[in-house]
Amino acid sequence: MAENENSIRFGIMGCAEIARKVSRAIHLAPNASLVAIASRSIHKANQFAVQNKLSENVKLYGSYDELLDDPFVDAVYMPLPTSLHVKWAVRAAEKGKHVLLEKPTAIDVKMFDEMLKACESKGVQFMDASMWYHHPRTAKMKEFLSNSDLFGRVKAIHSSSSYHGTPEFLENDIRVKPDLDALGALGDTGWYCIGAILWTMNQKLPTTVTALPTTIRNSAGVILSCSASMYWDEEQIVATFYCSFISHETMELAVCGSNGTFHVEDFIIPYDESSAEFSCTSGAKFVDLHVGWNVKPQEVRVATELPQEALMIQEFSRLVKGIKDHGLQPDAEWGQTSRITQLVLDAVRNSIDNGYEAVQM
Amino acid sequence: MAENENSIRFGIMGCAEIARKVSRAIHLAPNASLVAIASRSIHKANQFAVQNKLSENVKLYGSYDELLDDPFVDAVYMPLPTSLHVKWAVRAAEKGKHVLLEKPTAIDVKMFDEMLKACESKGVQFMDASMWYHHPRTAKMKEFLSNSDLFGRVKAIHSSSSYHGTPEFLENDIRVKPDLDALGALGDTGWYCIGAILWTMNQKLPTTVTALPTTIRNSAGVILSCSASMYWDEEQIVATFYCSFISHETMELAVCGSNGTFHVEDFIIPYDESSAEFSCTSGAKFVDLHVGWNVKPQEVRVATELPQEALMIQEFSRLVKGIKDHGLQPDAEWGQTSRITQLVLDAVRNSIDNGYEAVQM
Repeated sequence: MAENENSIRFGIMGCAEIARKVSRAIHLAPNASLVAIASRSIHKANQFAVQNKLSENVKLYGSYDELLDDPFVDAVYMPLPTSLHVKWAVRAAEKGKHVLLEKPTAIDVKMFDEMLKACESKGVQFMDASMWYHHPRTAKMKEFLSNSDLFGRVKAIHSSSSYHGTPEFLENDIRVKPDLDALGALGDTGWYCIGAILWTMNQKLPTTVTALPTTIRNSAGVILSCSASMYWDEEQIVATFYCSFISHETMELAVCGSNGTFHVEDFIIPYDESSAEFSCTSGAKFVDLHVGWNVKPQEVRVATELPQEALMIQEFSRLVKGIKDHGLQPDAEWGQTSRITQLVLDAVRNSIDNGYEAVQM
Repeated sequence: MAENENSIRFGIMGCAEIARKVSRAIHLAPNASLVAIASRSIHKANQFAVQNKLSENVKLYGSYDELLDDPFVDAVYMPLPTSLHVKWAVRAAEKGKHVLLEKPTAIDVKMFDEMLKACESKGVQFMDASMWYHHPRTAKMKEFLSNSDLFGRVKAIHSSSSYHGTPEFLENDIRVKPDLDALGALGDTGWYCIGAILWTMNQKLPTTVTALPTTIRNSAGVILSCSASMYWDEEQIVATFYCSFISHETMELAVCGSNGTFHVEDFIIPYDESSAEFSCTSGAKFVDLHVGWNVKPQEVRVATELPQEALMIQEFSRLVKGIKDHGLQPDAEWGQTSRITQLVLDAVRNSIDNGYEAVQM
């Protein structure tokens, strides 16, 4: 909303569909403003500005370098194909721009570390653009999962993230092109499953990651669907996930604890923008003769004034503001959250590539 | 309810806790009556009769053989520890009694086949006592999953069945004794997961079964918790399940299809006796800018006049009646449903015992 002098000034690099949502989020966030758009062609940048009714004050660039050279830009949001991330995120950091990067963050953790190192050495904030972490529902979910009485200890986790691509999508979309988004469904929807499982585990790396022998690929060899399992030896916890471009829309996280059960069906994109639910049960027992339960799942609804993507922009901008105006250090946790997700994603891919062998972490 | 001359006359062999529920179910079913109870001691049989306020007409036996020798008994319900099933189910069949057997049906499929062969050669009905198949909700669930427009083809399945045993239960209950119920949680709660997955697949055997390396055992080596995956190569379908005695109560089946999603949280024991729900979604798409969904899950509630265990007794009695009074053949499908469940259960156990290797079916 605000485009005052205190706002963090964003440039968007790349006019992907998702950039429309984030451009609106920047507009909604009270401490951010959109000041520039770059595409590989000025024509596309212009088209994006018209389509999204951007203010005339938003500068349009026909190349990413021009945007990065604009001293007025504090931070960049980068919805580029994954294979381009390392080049442009490193260059952005070198130009002193804070980096909000679309997921999956990189083709592998080696490339990821190049980006993170560049951000760290230039003192700029890094965050991947997984929006769901920023919904107030997520904090409420964590409250339940952290409650040792109501939920107890984690025992088993299952997550599913899928959508049904059209035949055209499955052969031609950027997300299934080996030179652009080589990780396919594992990178796009699997990123969320892995992230949600690790979020449940408070970002603790599993001991072992093993893909299940059910990978489906398109004609170019890009993953359209896969499954994997993870184990935490010490805690004896198991997690499984399913991610796919060829199944109906799912965004599930189910966690079974020692004293309670947790379930959310729309954790990535809430059904509604203004509030979102999850379901939990505690201390359920079967009634006499086992003909019913003593308690049923409780629906917990959490309202939000701003959509989660605007909250993400707000949080990112708050951190950038601290660095820019108050000399604070970047918050390293966001980078670490992305990094551990990338590490597990790499392990799943390695397991798939090595005949579904277990990968020790 | 009815104890008329047309009723199928049941004897219960064994006074396990579950026998209380089934004794009530026999009472509720319009075409069945309870005529005898046997325990290893007449004292226990008597105690059961008093505790469950059984009619004085119900005969009490201090041995299983006496009950099987009673010509007045048409059918037996057998809630004995798994290791005793083969001996007593075979003997019951030999005595011409129809057999309703608690799950898990046997320690392995070899023993299972002994029982099934005995039943087939004597022309008696066999059924395992998995109650949920008989709830009208289950038929309604199948209707949705069979709808090629609303649900499409199955892509991925996940099931979970667990309850939290007390420390006393985990060391001393019959279900964790290697000489009585050697299959532990895999046999008790895993039976349902496997059954639900195979039910989803219209009883088609998977190509491969692989346990996940997370088995937890008690001090006697009996499984308290485990996980496994299954694949159907031709259809490229993956299923995973988690079963446990050391987690909060879950009874879940989630199926992801090409056009729809299905979810039920209480498939084994419905929350309420008189009606039960499941949830389904079809053709969901994200609204413009991906800030919400165009449809939300629909809750489908199915009422039932009789609880599912009484419907099981009613169906079993209907089949027995056909054999007894009309010279019909036993319905072989129930035996096949149990057998395929047992086969997959064996495969999971073999995979666990062989270092979690994949078992080809």
